[in-house]
Amino acid sequence: MTVPDLFVDLRSDTVTRPTPGMREAMAAAEVGDDVYGEDPSVNALEAEVAALFGHEAALFAPSGSMANQIALQLLVSPAEELLCDADAHVVTYEIGAAAAYGGISSRTWPAVGADIDPEVVAGMIRPDGYFAVPTRAIAVEQTHNRGGGGVIPLATLRDLRGVADEAGVALHCDGARIWHAHVADQVPLIEYGRLFDTLSVCLSKGLGAPVGSLVVGSAEKIERARLIRKRMGGGMRQAGILAAAGRYALAQHIDRLADDHAKAARLAEAVAPFGVLATTVRTNLVALDLTKHTMDARALAAAARAEGVLISVLGPRTARLVTHLGLSDADIDRALAALPRILAAA
Amino acid sequence: MTVPDLFVDLRSDTVTRPTPGMREAMAAAEVGDDVYGEDPSVNALEAEVAALFGHEAALFAPSGSMANQIALQLLVSPAEELLCDADAHVVTYEIGAAAAYGGISSRTWPAVGADIDPEVVAGMIRPDGYFAVPTRAIAVEQTHNRGGGGVIPLATLRDLRGVADEAGVALHCDGARIWHAHVADQVPLIEYGRLFDTLSVCLSKGLGAPVGSLVVGSAEKIERARLIRKRMGGGMRQAGILAAAGRYALAQHIDRLADDHAKAARLAEAVAPFGVLATTVRTNLVALDLTKHTMDARALAAAARAEGVLISVLGPRTARLVTHLGLSDADIDRALAALPRILAAA
Amino acid sequence: MTVPDLFVDLRSDTVTRPTPGMREAMAAAEVGDDVYGEDPSVNALEAEVAALFGHEAALFAPSGSMANQIALQLLVSPAEELLCDADAHVVTYEIGAAAAYGGISSRTWPAVGADIDPEVVAGMIRPDGYFAVPTRAIAVEQTHNRGGGGVIPLATLRDLRGVADEAGVALHCDGARIWHAHVADQVPLIEYGRLFDTLSVCLSKGLGAPVGSLVVGSAEKIERARLIRKRMGGGMRQAGILAAAGRYALAQHIDRLADDHAKAARLAEAVAPFGVLATTVRTNLVALDLTKHTMDARALAAAARAEGVLISVLGPRTARLVTHLGLSDADIDRALAALPRILAAA
Amino acid sequence: MTVPDLFVDLRSDTVTRPTPGMREAMAAAEVGDDVYGEDPSVNALEAEVAALFGHEAALFAPSGSMANQIALQLLVSPAEELLCDADAHVVTYEIGAAAAYGGISSRTWPAVGADIDPEVVAGMIRPDGYFAVPTRAIAVEQTHNRGGGGVIPLATLRDLRGVADEAGVALHCDGARIWHAHVADQVPLIEYGRLFDTLSVCLSKGLGAPVGSLVVGSAEKIERARLIRKRMGGGMRQAGILAAAGRYALAQHIDRLADDHAKAARLAEAVAPFGVLATTVRTNLVALDLTKHTMDARALAAAARAEGVLISVLGPRTARLVTHLGLSDADIDRALAALPRILAAA
Repeated sequence: MTVPDLFVDLRSDTVTRPTPGMREAMAAAEVGDDVYGEDPSVNALEAEVAALFGHEAALFAPSGSMANQIALQLLVSPAEELLCDADAHVVTYEIGAAAAYGGISSRTWPAVGADIDPEVVAGMIRPDGYFAVPTRAIAVEQTHNRGGGGVIPLATLRDLRGVADEAGVALHCDGARIWHAHVADQVPLIEYGRLFDTLSVCLSKGLGAPVGSLVVGSAEKIERARLIRKRMGGGMRQAGILAAAGRYALAQHIDRLADDHAKAARLAEAVAPFGVLATTVRTNLVALDLTKHTMDARALAAAARAEGVLISVLGPRTARLVTHLGLSDADIDRALAALPRILAAA
Repeated sequence: MTVPDLFVDLRSDTVTRPTPGMREAMAAAEVGDDVYGEDPSVNALEAEVAALFGHEAALFAPSGSMANQIALQLLVSPAEELLCDADAHVVTYEIGAAAAYGGISSRTWPAVGADIDPEVVAGMIRPDGYFAVPTRAIAVEQTHNRGGGGVIPLATLRDLRGVADEAGVALHCDGARIWHAHVADQVPLIEYGRLFDTLSVCLSKGLGAPVGSLVVGSAEKIERARLIRKRMGGGMRQAGILAAAGRYALAQHIDRLADDHAKAARLAEAVAPFGVLATTVRTNLVALDLTKHTMDARALAAAARAEGVLISVLGPRTARLVTHLGLSDADIDRALAALPRILAAA
Repeated sequence: MTVPDLFVDLRSDTVTRPTPGMREAMAAAEVGDDVYGEDPSVNALEAEVAALFGHEAALFAPSGSMANQIALQLLVSPAEELLCDADAHVVTYEIGAAAAYGGISSRTWPAVGADIDPEVVAGMIRPDGYFAVPTRAIAVEQTHNRGGGGVIPLATLRDLRGVADEAGVALHCDGARIWHAHVADQVPLIEYGRLFDTLSVCLSKGLGAPVGSLVVGSAEKIERARLIRKRMGGGMRQAGILAAAGRYALAQHIDRLADDHAKAARLAEAVAPFGVLATTVRTNLVALDLTKHTMDARALAAAARAEGVLISVLGPRTARLVTHLGLSDADIDRALAALPRILAAA
Repeated sequence: MTVPDLFVDLRSDTVTRPTPGMREAMAAAEVGDDVYGEDPSVNALEAEVAALFGHEAALFAPSGSMANQIALQLLVSPAEELLCDADAHVVTYEIGAAAAYGGISSRTWPAVGADIDPEVVAGMIRPDGYFAVPTRAIAVEQTHNRGGGGVIPLATLRDLRGVADEAGVALHCDGARIWHAHVADQVPLIEYGRLFDTLSVCLSKGLGAPVGSLVVGSAEKIERARLIRKRMGGGMRQAGILAAAGRYALAQHIDRLADDHAKAARLAEAVAPFGVLATTVRTNLVALDLTKHTMDARALAAAARAEGVLISVLGPRTARLVTHLGLSDADIDRALAALPRILAAA
């Protein structure tokens, strides 16, 4: 089933289709066998992304979930522990892979989105030597998906790095939308990069590439990551076709995220009077909380669809609007014409 | 290395040795091959424990950890989710087995010991059908080990049962020390039993048997549990020797827990002035919090040991005193003579 | 590191690069978000492949390993058993995923390549109800990679189907190169399809697409497969770019495999006199066995490389030559000029 | 359900009940908390068993399955490989634990019982560095359960040790009934011990103790084994009760196994004429193969039970008789009176 363009698709920034320029880049991509490490486009993309974050190496993967799970398996051995927040993508939307495939035990701090208290995290760490499952890694999500696209402040991340260093545990960034944080807070990517042992970054969400994420880290880690990627089934052959799209996206689509943020701000302003904003909107995500409304998230989505607007249902009373490069100002106008009317009845 | 009796051993109620009466029961135990289901003492123990909690069946296991893990594997399939508190035994002291062997994903509410807010738990449940890892079970710990032996009130448990029922998830009780809750709150065991889908109960902690725990649940669950127990390596042959001790413990050692509670209260009263009590003492555990003291937990334990008193170190700034049937009033007197002196310098 | 075209690359059929026509198909591909099931090119490819094999449904995956592992996880639950041969790709080259991620126990019949004795397989099946790990699936590989591209005769497969049916176990085909069997033995794909519960087929080996494999099976299985694919990290977004290449490959590159087979036969004939042929060459793989030679596989590969010919090292004394659409007759001539000379000294 | 003594129980040597002397030893056992390493009887047993096999250390476990699985987890990491025979206990009767809990990939050589060909095993080993799952350990079973109690000759074991050394892989002995091999072949236990990296030995089969096995190995391995045992749920407290029985069994019940062997030989001689002996009988197991008979194994067991004789059903056409210390000469006489009569009609 395909979605006709007559819909304004606010479900996710994953729905974007490659632009003509990106298609050209793919059509002309030089390729080789990436399982043998011989795809020049993949190699170039990996080198570029590693450099962007000031790390030694990076590895291309078919999805953000795989990039995260590879990183977690690098940092945490079976029967050891990961700390993250209770709404983190890695324990919510990756279908239980951390535990089921990585054997990774997890404990979570409350779902506060980007408003992390490093002291709370510090208090949860279990050091070696006390008969308890030892904590090996802390994962944060920048920006935070279920946290309404919130941006973890650089100062918080630095405090978390201090917490991790003191305890001798690793720090991972699920950076699927770290580009949005970079644009919103004007923090250089390399600043983020230096704070983490590993990062995952995604090319196929806000940046608009069709497929692909990368794991970023030390040369030693990325070498081990190649084996884990093969085990996960992520070893692709002439992946340079996809990598070329990713390189194009990095070059052309980062700065334009400011436009997506502006569009999201327009949506947020329009729905705010109805008391549905779960959190302040900083980037391209608008989280809706319907706990005080008679209409639940599925009903809201159905009503919006009837008006030609598609939104995402994240839970019984949670919905989400997402802006992206596939949306014109006219699309946002259409959404603004429909959503307040529907919410007035919610 | 054995611990000479010249020490007052407050480390754990697991250190108790069988009493003469218990030894007699073991020596006379009728036995068979329990892997074939033919050990009459095991069968009798399983039937007795099932009846105590009003369930159809129970299964003997070599440890509390195995009993818990069997229950979790019964309730939660690989890649599905368990909710528990961040200090729960099942994600702290069972060496990562839930994730590593069961593939079970876990998220945790804050470490509040017995003071559970059912609304917080309800808010964490992820129902089927939203692309997120589905929650299948909630586990609570009665009494709560790292929560200083706190007793979850019956009303709280009933609310949790309601939360679980509404969401269609299972409720497990890590009841290693449920006997102490029963004695402290005067709640019949069968009242507790009716609130849970599965319980684990332990014979070798406060009850003083040398070895053994049981999983309690429906006949269908316990039949599946036998296979999981075998996979975990818990199938024992003439286990009736141990079951006989367990039956003796159930008959003789439940009511006397009140005496352990009184001894713990004496210890608590003596250390309270030093600001180290982590929580009110209700049962046989006294949790010490040294975050505001110069002496850390290991130093405290070393100082106490030098005075002939053994205590447990649970974390850098967390220690624990435990009373049990192996301690006389004179033992407590000795501890009371030493601990306040040491704490005065802590 | 890229491989300059001055080498004749006989390492694998995975090294092929997309042809101009295939690149055109990719550039023009209609796409959508395949995680939402909305990519029209992926949907069309899945429908075409399902129809080719007479099954209800198929699912696109980023690699042959993932397609196999998804199928195995569909057929065999954790702690249950898979039977396959000791040289099968699924227990050799998939980095331990079946056990590590699927919890799947495996027993193997001897490494006989395509020469399977159904009676031997039948004798290994462990039915339910005897306290032993129950056998749930049998996997065969068509053509057989380490078995020198051997083709399992249709009659053997029918006997295996009978064995599976009698025992109530599933039959999986690792059909990464099933296209070659179809061409070599003139068996319609739909004939193969009807014999298996699940198949994996690969677009990026002999068929020359850059990326992609599919799992084929019933609608119910493929629905479950979507979830497993997401857990494995194989959910891609606008994968239609890749699917378009796959559709082109299916339409253009199956019949031409006969040419690859002829080239392989030329290679085989040339090396046969040196006693290195591990098995009769039927398709595009030439397996070399150096157990009776002084030169080992790595030395042979190094000597060949020095002459501009790349070959694959599969074990200390095992090497492999592979023909594919990237090789011209002149390439084969160059190989034929070099290899016999090297082997004469081996 | 208990089995009345009016049956002659030839099902297994696990059905034995502790003798009066053994019960006395248990009743008098000095005990402590073995999870803390403080149980003097367990410590003494572990030291004795380590010494018997010339190893540094040993660890008590509640079952033979757990002892094996601990050893396998010590030797083989998740996604790495174990080689064993297709009838090995570790891939047959341990409920899939190696794969499901240890993530261990396995390949098997044909089910030849004790008649292992070291060359066949050598040919299956996959060394590091060839992109294949690397082999880390080989496991053999002495005596071989499904192999009819066959004894692997010392010369074969020495050859296997050579194979393992050359490949740099570990060698494990599932020695649940190694005592029988020692008695049958007059090989000192320490001779066996020096050939293996790890061994598991069982006290509750032929030796007649109620519960318990041990893992034997280096000090470093056994230290890691303690953690794995805890994760498996095998940490028991006052396990000295059981260890005392084990020490008694080691002192009193090894040499008497010759008597069990003689009884098994009498059974074998009586059934041989009916063509049901699967293999020569060397120890206390008699394997019956009914593939050429009209009566299947369940029918045979039912017919025997009707005559007061209990036998084990291992497969549709496989049955087993086992002798042990619970059987008198009169019991064997009863079996000899019944079995030939039944087999005559089989």
